[in-house]
Amino acid sequence: MQIFTTAEALRDYLDRAPGPIAFVPTMGALHEGHLALVRAARADHPTVVCSIFVNPTQFNEAADLEAYPRTPEADAALLAGVDCEVLYLPDVEDVYPTGTAVSLAEQLDFGSLTTRMEGAHRPGHFAGVAQVVSRLLEIVRPTTLVMGQKDYQQVAVVRSMIAQLGLGVVLRAVATVREADGLAMSSRNRRLGPAERQAAPAINRHLAAVVAGLRAGWPARQLEALALDGLRRHPLLDPEYVEICHGDTLLPYTEGETSREIVVATAVRCGPVRLIDNHALAAPFNP
Amino acid sequence: MQIFTTAEALRDYLDRAPGPIAFVPTMGALHEGHLALVRAARADHPTVVCSIFVNPTQFNEAADLEAYPRTPEADAALLAGVDCEVLYLPDVEDVYPTGTAVSLAEQLDFGSLTTRMEGAHRPGHFAGVAQVVSRLLEIVRPTTLVMGQKDYQQVAVVRSMIAQLGLGVVLRAVATVREADGLAMSSRNRRLGPAERQAAPAINRHLAAVVAGLRAGWPARQLEALALDGLRRHPLLDPEYVEICHGDTLLPYTEGETSREIVVATAVRCGPVRLIDNHALAAPFNP
Repeated sequence: MQIFTTAEALRDYLDRAPGPIAFVPTMGALHEGHLALVRAARADHPTVVCSIFVNPTQFNEAADLEAYPRTPEADAALLAGVDCEVLYLPDVEDVYPTGTAVSLAEQLDFGSLTTRMEGAHRPGHFAGVAQVVSRLLEIVRPTTLVMGQKDYQQVAVVRSMIAQLGLGVVLRAVATVREADGLAMSSRNRRLGPAERQAAPAINRHLAAVVAGLRAGWPARQLEALALDGLRRHPLLDPEYVEICHGDTLLPYTEGETSREIVVATAVRCGPVRLIDNHALAAPFNP
Repeated sequence: MQIFTTAEALRDYLDRAPGPIAFVPTMGALHEGHLALVRAARADHPTVVCSIFVNPTQFNEAADLEAYPRTPEADAALLAGVDCEVLYLPDVEDVYPTGTAVSLAEQLDFGSLTTRMEGAHRPGHFAGVAQVVSRLLEIVRPTTLVMGQKDYQQVAVVRSMIAQLGLGVVLRAVATVREADGLAMSSRNRRLGPAERQAAPAINRHLAAVVAGLRAGWPARQLEALALDGLRRHPLLDPEYVEICHGDTLLPYTEGETSREIVVATAVRCGPVRLIDNHALAAPFNP
C-alpha cells in the first residue's frame, strides 16, 4: 500500500492509476464500519483511495478533538488487509494551505438540512464537514465518494453540497455496521467505560422500537416521546434528541405523509462520549 | 399412508408400530403450519399420527363451525408429502361414543389460564379443547404431542391439563409459520376476501411493534393501547384484545417484572373471520 502525505504526490500517482477511482474519507481510528466502506468501493473500482485526517474545523468541542483516537499504524495495517492501495495521510497545512477559515459555507445554502439535530447541537460542524470534503474531492477527484449511513445528516449535507457545486461525483452511502449487541460502530466507542459500553446498545433498541412502531403506523410524535423517555430513564444515558424526519429534507415526519424514505435519528451522551445512530426506512413503510 | 376412521382400528395398528409415537391433532384444512408440525414430529419419531377432526364441542359460534373449511383429500395428499404414514379421520361418534356432554372441565382447574383473552371471548371453547385432546390422547397414547404456538393459550391449557391428569406425554410447541407478508398461517385465512387478506398482515406488524417496544423497556400498558388504537383505526379490522402477559400464568405483564417468557397476544375480527396471533419473548427481554 502506498502512503501519501501531500496532495501533490497523491495527484501524481492518481493521474496514472487505473480508474474509476473511489474515495473513502475518514478520520482514522478505523473499525469494521470503515472497512465495509473500503470493501464496497473495492468491489467496483480498480483504485480505492482512503484518507485519514482528523479535521479540526468540524469539531465544535476542543475536548472532543483532543481525545479523538489516533491510531495510524493500526489503520494502515487494516487498510492493507482490505486491498486499499492508496492512503492519503495529510497534515493540516496540506489540506488547508491558505488557512482553515471556513468560506465555503457562505456560498452554500443547506436549508433545513443543517438547522436541526446535529446542526442544532453542534454549531459549525457541518460548515467544517463541507469545507474538508470539498477540499478532499478537489484533491482526489474520484468518480465515487463512499460514506457511511451512520452519519445520515452528514450524507445529506454532502449530497446537497455536491449538487450545489455541480461536482458530478457519485455519493454512495453504505449501511451502518453494528456490533453483535446492536451498537453502531464508531471510532468514539473505544472511549466508553465498561458500564457505559454495556448501556450503549439500548440506543439501538429504542430506535428499533420506533422503526417497528412506524411500520405499524403508530403516531410519530408518541414514538419519539417513548424513545426519549426510555433513554432518559437510563442512568448512564442522556439523550439530546430523537427525531423522525423525511430523509430528503430532515423535517419532521408525521404518520400518513408520503416520503420516499423516513429516518429516525438520535444523539445520546454516554459518559464523556456523544453517540449518534439512525435507522432509515424506505417507502412503503406499512403496505 | 394408512387412514383409520375408528379408534379400534387405529389402536390395533399403533400397538404394532415402531415407537416413539408423535401425535399431531388438527382440524384439517391443512397448511404449511400443520406440515411444520408433522416435519418436526417426523424428525425424531418413527411413527407420526395426524388426526383430522373438526371438534364441535370447541366451537362457540355455529356459523364458525359450519363455515370451517373441510378438505380431506387435499389434506391426505399433503400429509403423504411430509411422510406422515398414519391419518386418523374419525366421525363424532367415534370420538364421543357416549355423547358430547363436556365433563372433563369439572375435574380440572385452569385458574388464570382460561379467564382472559380467548377464554373470555370464546365461552366453552377451552372446555371443548380439553375434552377432545384428552380423548384423542387416550386413543393415540403418544410419547409426544405436537402443537402450534399460534394457539399460545391453547398450548398453555393443554400443558396444564396434561400435568393435572398426570398423563406423562411431552407437549412440544412449534413456532408459528407465517406467510411472506407476516400473516400467521391459519385454516381460516382462506375465508378472507381480497381486501381483508390485504389488511390482515397489519396484525403481525402491530405485534412486532409491541415486541420491539418491550425489548426497549417501553411501558406495557402504553404498548397495548398503541396496538389496539392502531388496529381500531383500520377500517377492516376490529380488535378484541391486545394483551401482554406472563407466559406461564397469562396474567398481565408490567415492565420491570421478571418472567421466563412474555407473550403478546391478540384477536382481531376481519370481516367474517376471527384471527388470532401472538409473539413470545424469552427472557432476558432487554439485557
